[in-house]
Amino acid sequence: MGGTAAAASTLAAPAYAQGNRTLTLVTTWGRGLAGVHDSAQYCADAITAATDGQLTVDLKAAGELVGAFEVFDAVSAGQADMYHGVDYYFVNQHPAYQFFASLPFGMTAQELNNWYYHDGGFELHNELGQIFGLKSFLAGNTGPQSGGWFRREMNSPEDFNGLKFRMPGQGGEVLGKLGASVQNLPGGEVYQALASGAIDGTEWIGPWADEKAGFQEITKIYYTAGFHEPGPGLSLAVNLEVWESLSPAHQAVVEQVATASNNWTLAIFMKNNASALQRLQSSGVTVREFSDEIWDAFGTAATEVYQQYMGDELYKKIFDSYQASMRDSAGWIQRSEGAFSQQRNRIIGV
Amino acid sequence: MGGTAAAASTLAAPAYAQGNRTLTLVTTWGRGLAGVHDSAQYCADAITAATDGQLTVDLKAAGELVGAFEVFDAVSAGQADMYHGVDYYFVNQHPAYQFFASLPFGMTAQELNNWYYHDGGFELHNELGQIFGLKSFLAGNTGPQSGGWFRREMNSPEDFNGLKFRMPGQGGEVLGKLGASVQNLPGGEVYQALASGAIDGTEWIGPWADEKAGFQEITKIYYTAGFHEPGPGLSLAVNLEVWESLSPAHQAVVEQVATASNNWTLAIFMKNNASALQRLQSSGVTVREFSDEIWDAFGTAATEVYQQYMGDELYKKIFDSYQASMRDSAGWIQRSEGAFSQQRNRIIGV
Repeated sequence: MGGTAAAASTLAAPAYAQGNRTLTLVTTWGRGLAGVHDSAQYCADAITAATDGQLTVDLKAAGELVGAFEVFDAVSAGQADMYHGVDYYFVNQHPAYQFFASLPFGMTAQELNNWYYHDGGFELHNELGQIFGLKSFLAGNTGPQSGGWFRREMNSPEDFNGLKFRMPGQGGEVLGKLGASVQNLPGGEVYQALASGAIDGTEWIGPWADEKAGFQEITKIYYTAGFHEPGPGLSLAVNLEVWESLSPAHQAVVEQVATASNNWTLAIFMKNNASALQRLQSSGVTVREFSDEIWDAFGTAATEVYQQYMGDELYKKIFDSYQASMRDSAGWIQRSEGAFSQQRNRIIGV
Repeated sequence: MGGTAAAASTLAAPAYAQGNRTLTLVTTWGRGLAGVHDSAQYCADAITAATDGQLTVDLKAAGELVGAFEVFDAVSAGQADMYHGVDYYFVNQHPAYQFFASLPFGMTAQELNNWYYHDGGFELHNELGQIFGLKSFLAGNTGPQSGGWFRREMNSPEDFNGLKFRMPGQGGEVLGKLGASVQNLPGGEVYQALASGAIDGTEWIGPWADEKAGFQEITKIYYTAGFHEPGPGLSLAVNLEVWESLSPAHQAVVEQVATASNNWTLAIFMKNNASALQRLQSSGVTVREFSDEIWDAFGTAATEVYQQYMGDELYKKIFDSYQASMRDSAGWIQRSEGAFSQQRNRIIGV
């Protein structure tokens, strides 16, 4: 669990006053990062409002108490009460955290929700959380993440060889198989790395958040659909002892708010991406899609990456549950919503 | 507002005891109807739990206090506190209620959420609700509804001429333009009508709910993708005076629970439809898709149906907001999630 605990132990204990209790929420997001910070703030505000302040949630953005990647250890160790973040930042704690964010070639947001709420996902998230003293909930989703920002067009799998690229978790490992030199940087540090040339390119989230981050000021080639994060869940995780100290009513509030935030957050990304992409294109950004050949190379590499972790029993158990659920969902969605959208878009001219 | 108020006035006044308040929730669903009754029960249970019973929600299924189609008037008039239902049942009260359920050739569930939470939909729902003394929230979604159950294959638009078919709201009006004789029946009455030959065919929801309703016992031809309800929202509507009597914290609970239920409910339908369709096919049901020619005829008729209501200023205002948001969302989703899903499904063989 490393060096975070020492730094975090200087934090104040939870405050109790006038029947109200302050819960400290640390996040993996720089203050104001589009969508993701909004999602954490939504959770903080809604829990506070729905408990009439009996649980007052105090949001500390990345760096305000602990660094972005330190929130997991801080909450696990009890130096903060809750974190809001994306669980693939914590694959070093356990590789199976990847599933509760997004797997390369994995689930879309809807498929993830199907699995999470009705096909065993939530229970598996918390089987994993037991190891670390966490009670976890999905509490947001960014929707499908874009392939990212490049200085030149990617015309074949070989173009990734030697590329210095920012991509977290197992998506980054997939690019590594293609010879890329992959880094994992928190969102607040990506712009500077790209501007300085420390990295050649980056993915972040999608047009809306990417535009706010300003990557279009540095690179001009943007791939919209990506393989790496088709619908990353964001998590709200509560220290397990803190969770067990909450009344059943307050536990119900936290669970309802997390589930509501999951819905609200996905919609804010999906709504804002359309107009942001239009603005990016107007400002001179070229939009591209990867060729089938590149998609095939991503797919082959993704399978190799999964295999590296199959020796871990819990990873394999979750992988099997996830894949079975995804195949079911994918088939139905293609046949229903997919078929409808194709006909509607053809007829109305989208 | 009609004859419902007289029947509803015999209901008991809200009970207050030991600081707890009972809120009566009437629904448009027969008790136990798959997914939709579950969604209403989710709302009732979660509001009760998250307020520690200070608001105890007492669910009365269709017919237990008032009939399925009477819930709107009962809550509007204050004889019940809340309803859970699908708002296109209330197009006779105002045609614009169609938008908060599902429009023919309209939004998918995700597109509806984008509009509702972040592009003006919620505010318009409540501008409409003001007329009737209602505070409304989306609180569920069935996902894309299937084209429905037929006794014979539909090979051309002419095959709908003279067909006796159950389809509510403006979707039904579209079929009427093709010459069908359309009826609107509550879910609990459809099986009997189909079995008796009062109708030739019906749509209901999707494979899971349809299988539970038992339509496969009577008809054997099933069209999966439909034009009529690509993502029907379910609403939780509170009598406006009751709403204003709630504390801000309790209002926050109701809003969070509705938003959470929206997410949870969509996922329960999407998860269960896949396996249900497989079972239906195993039991001898033939699955079909409408031809492009039929889709085109649906599309032309849908445009005619919209036009009938454009004289209503509020309908037109909501239509314009809805269509603009849908086009934005549809373009982005096609380019991101659509492109990803196509590549993934190709590569993993879905």
